[in-house]
Amino acid sequence: MFHEFAEFEKLPDKMVNSVEQMEAESDFINGFVVLNETKTIIGYVTYFFAYYTWIGKSMYMDDLYVKRDFRGSGIGTKLIKKVIEKAKSDKCNKLRWQVSEWNQPAIDFYKNLGATVDSVESNCDLSLS
Amino acid sequence: MFHEFAEFEKLPDKMVNSVEQMEAESDFINGFVVLNETKTIIGYVTYFFAYYTWIGKSMYMDDLYVKRDFRGSGIGTKLIKKVIEKAKSDKCNKLRWQVSEWNQPAIDFYKNLGATVDSVESNCDLSLS
Repeated sequence: MFHEFAEFEKLPDKMVNSVEQMEAESDFINGFVVLNETKTIIGYVTYFFAYYTWIGKSMYMDDLYVKRDFRGSGIGTKLIKKVIEKAKSDKCNKLRWQVSEWNQPAIDFYKNLGATVDSVESNCDLSLS
Repeated sequence: MFHEFAEFEKLPDKMVNSVEQMEAESDFINGFVVLNETKTIIGYVTYFFAYYTWIGKSMYMDDLYVKRDFRGSGIGTKLIKKVIEKAKSDKCNKLRWQVSEWNQPAIDFYKNLGATVDSVESNCDLSLS
């Protein structure tokens, strides 16, 4: 489903992780999943703790994804609310995540949740592997 | 110096953290400082571990700042190289950070280090405090 998400984000080549690597790094992976009535995963969210010096202890939500057939029924909202609840219970001051600038439905959804969406910062990525 | 950095970034109002809060949250703060010959801090960098599902275990560099009078003498490079070294020794696959889109000298500096700079993603921030 991580690959499916990368396809959805129009960046399939950026997904270079593997099942083996994720198993080896599993101590660093946190998240929640939603199962349907047949116990199949239909949506997931991942997060990690962050420390932004300007605001303090925070949480970063990396992936939020719901399978196509199950969108529009509140599952995404349920997943993000679960992360907000977790962040609050861990005394985080902020939840940060990112949205692709072309994904207007997601931008509207996030603004509706009360988030500010800001495009001043660009990501810098340095590959180390 | 955190306040000074927020001024430099033209976002002084976004710096809402305090010494008291940072002391209380000190377990979550990691970084390096550079001292001059009088043991005064003239530059600093902060980082935290991240997990980007597409690439795996990573490090995020939050602040990188050198006081005005000491810029242009390689201190910034020294600090970022120290973070890269730490990230590699902790088996991180990627180092990510952000740059303001108006800060062309920094963008050039980072590209020169081998980083890719991408503005497709926007930050979404939800205040929890």
